[in-house]
Amino acid sequence: MKGKLITFEGGEGSGKSSVSKFVFENLKSKKISCIWTREPGGTPSAEKIRSILVKTSTDKLEPITELLLHYAARAEHYHNFIKPQMETGTIVLCDRFYDSTTAYQGYGHKLDLKTVEKIKNLVIGKFKPDLTFIMHIPAEDGLKRAGKREVETKSNENRYEMMDIDFHKRLEKGFLAIAKKEPKRCIIVNAKQPLEEVCADVLNKLHKHLKI
Amino acid sequence: MKGKLITFEGGEGSGKSSVSKFVFENLKSKKISCIWTREPGGTPSAEKIRSILVKTSTDKLEPITELLLHYAARAEHYHNFIKPQMETGTIVLCDRFYDSTTAYQGYGHKLDLKTVEKIKNLVIGKFKPDLTFIMHIPAEDGLKRAGKREVETKSNENRYEMMDIDFHKRLEKGFLAIAKKEPKRCIIVNAKQPLEEVCADVLNKLHKHLKI
Repeated sequence: MKGKLITFEGGEGSGKSSVSKFVFENLKSKKISCIWTREPGGTPSAEKIRSILVKTSTDKLEPITELLLHYAARAEHYHNFIKPQMETGTIVLCDRFYDSTTAYQGYGHKLDLKTVEKIKNLVIGKFKPDLTFIMHIPAEDGLKRAGKREVETKSNENRYEMMDIDFHKRLEKGFLAIAKKEPKRCIIVNAKQPLEEVCADVLNKLHKHLKI
Repeated sequence: MKGKLITFEGGEGSGKSSVSKFVFENLKSKKISCIWTREPGGTPSAEKIRSILVKTSTDKLEPITELLLHYAARAEHYHNFIKPQMETGTIVLCDRFYDSTTAYQGYGHKLDLKTVEKIKNLVIGKFKPDLTFIMHIPAEDGLKRAGKREVETKSNENRYEMMDIDFHKRLEKGFLAIAKKEPKRCIIVNAKQPLEEVCADVLNKLHKHLKI
């Protein structure tokens, strides 16, 4: 495939969405063919699956159900959006991808990591992002930021933010473990810095990767 | 588990729903603790997943997505309905279960049967129904019957009936292969007979199995 997939990962309030959108605007301004997308979602069918995930309280779905729904949405997104976009040479910027599922359903909900890996292999085989930014912020700080955003945007997609602090600490640990396992693909970003500095940091590393 | 799971399987127009509901009324009249349910669905979350499956045209979802959605719905139904009902000693009568997924997504949509089996094992382990009635009717006859029912009930859940005859022939072959592989669990029923005879046939075999 000629294009690339760049993913943005992290816990609640880590700034993934803002940073990935900032990167998108930057690449566009440089006339680089790129597109921004998110998971779960990104295609009409995947968005329908997203609505079940985000509208059902997280203690109402079995962890294995969440895992299967995330990968069902990802199958649609990967086969019908990400892959065809990459085949045209586009750089796809994705707010969350499979590392989030490993972190949330595996580390967070304590599903067997081997089960999570098996489902991944069945759905997308050995495919992986070209580069992944893991936005790291201590669980407590991320939750504080996310809580503030909830109030400001009146978002109701806060099911994970309702989970206890131990869940979020497992997430934080999970993302760091993922980054440690694949240091070539994953770059840990200090997301506790002010947003402008996080953006500059990510952009700098991305430009190096893209050699622009 | 003290209860039992009895499943009713077959292609379009094979009469599964009518027969399973008839059996339910018969067991109730004998004061046997029993309940009727169906797949995909059977719990509030599983019904939400069902609505994505039945409202999306079958050529609009990747076969692997369908597989994952069916097992996501099944995870909810199994863990939160079938298993707890069986634990109280209830006989659960289920209109479709995992054999339908093997037949439709495996044989029908040609997904690797080993993939289908792997997902099954990850979701429900070695659990299997106590008895399965495979309602066998030649694909052409079943489709004719199903088409008639569509018109009568104004149902819009006809996505599979829109598939070509080869798909339905693969289904028919699939169900027969499943029955052949597990002859102790699966009973093939001649569903081309008039409905009363099919019901009498199934009831006779079920009473023998239950020793009533």
